[in-house]
Amino acid sequence: MIDVYSWPTPNGHKVHIMLEECGLRLGRDWRVHAVNIGLGDQFQPEFLKISPNNKIPALVDPVGPDGKPISLFESGAILLYLAAKTGKLLPRTDRQKFEVLQWLMFQMGGVGPMLGQAHHFRIYAPEKIGYAVDRYTNEARRLYGVMDKQLSGHKFIAGNQYTVADIAIFPWLRSWQNQGIDWADYPRLKDWFDRIAARPAVQRGVAVLADARKPLTDERAREALFGKDQYKKR
Amino acid sequence: MIDVYSWPTPNGHKVHIMLEECGLRLGRDWRVHAVNIGLGDQFQPEFLKISPNNKIPALVDPVGPDGKPISLFESGAILLYLAAKTGKLLPRTDRQKFEVLQWLMFQMGGVGPMLGQAHHFRIYAPEKIGYAVDRYTNEARRLYGVMDKQLSGHKFIAGNQYTVADIAIFPWLRSWQNQGIDWADYPRLKDWFDRIAARPAVQRGVAVLADARKPLTDERAREALFGKDQYKKR
Repeated sequence: MIDVYSWPTPNGHKVHIMLEECGLRLGRDWRVHAVNIGLGDQFQPEFLKISPNNKIPALVDPVGPDGKPISLFESGAILLYLAAKTGKLLPRTDRQKFEVLQWLMFQMGGVGPMLGQAHHFRIYAPEKIGYAVDRYTNEARRLYGVMDKQLSGHKFIAGNQYTVADIAIFPWLRSWQNQGIDWADYPRLKDWFDRIAARPAVQRGVAVLADARKPLTDERAREALFGKDQYKKR
Repeated sequence: MIDVYSWPTPNGHKVHIMLEECGLRLGRDWRVHAVNIGLGDQFQPEFLKISPNNKIPALVDPVGPDGKPISLFESGAILLYLAAKTGKLLPRTDRQKFEVLQWLMFQMGGVGPMLGQAHHFRIYAPEKIGYAVDRYTNEARRLYGVMDKQLSGHKFIAGNQYTVADIAIFPWLRSWQNQGIDWADYPRLKDWFDRIAARPAVQRGVAVLADARKPLTDERAREALFGKDQYKKR
């Protein structure tokens, strides 16, 4: 049984979806441990042992590549690990594999962090800062534009196969409203989004821990997520 | 001859260093094409064909995995490609490989984007916004702390071997002054930094295009990098 330490955020959803798309079933092949990031669970010493950067998701597989347990953090690394373990969602030829890896990195270095900043300054920051709201809303729109253009020649993000690149990007686009996006500007991306959203494994993935999350509006959550606590030396 | 499209920024340096560490020599095995991001070269149609996200670096190898040319964007994907091509700087056992991949992803998703935001709000933004300066300075310090702690048990970032994870992180830490960092707080990381900086291939890598870059203070550079131009539909 694979242990997944997670929370229903885009980075958590990536791994939940990946597991289900790989044919691993919640309750049969993997179980989830809620790391309530609004309560500061991510700073607990036991969690930091498997996730030294205090971020969800993390994963412990009792049967690693050499038969011994392995623990992993960083959603991008976990997707590649599960692809290698199951032989799914990453093409086997090197040419196609690197095509996918560059779009996975595009998600890791651009889509995730920049849409995350858009969420922060548009929704969570205690003050409305016009310059930062504009900066990240513009960047969100630029990134959506890059993906929309890429889909003009391809059925999926990294070509004509559904891969880890699609799984990595999809959960971040579910919060399009918080990013100042009008889907009418990105018709090919919207079509892709709807196709991914309709997949049964995706629907199972985004349902994981769905009841656990509440809006992060109370003071305690605000302090755990955006306050000084997160910067304490540990 | 590998063609590298780059500029002397941290993401450019990653690839310059990697090439040199892999035994590929500038002028003999690869050549560099300056993409002057202060003049907006990154928005030229020919560049967008190989780098659809309008970012440096990009690379074209005339001899790809199947013997045919391959082009790649995203520095993290390029590092993995060069490691696969040369058999260097990424361990061969799966267990060690995934250990490295998670720290490479930590750089791609955290160190790069967040230190980049620190640079923006501390140095480049036209207005000083205290909230954003604090947010990203604190995050820079948190990330340095995570790496300093990781190095308490390891000689290098992802264990006791020098790997792509070190090469990905090092160039970002050269701008520590712009990130509000006091090295005295991170003695193990500083020791690692000095060891990496002393490597001949690293010194060759950071020297590439070093003369081309001027401070990004004029209006044209500001517009190309931070103005509305970058968000135009293309």
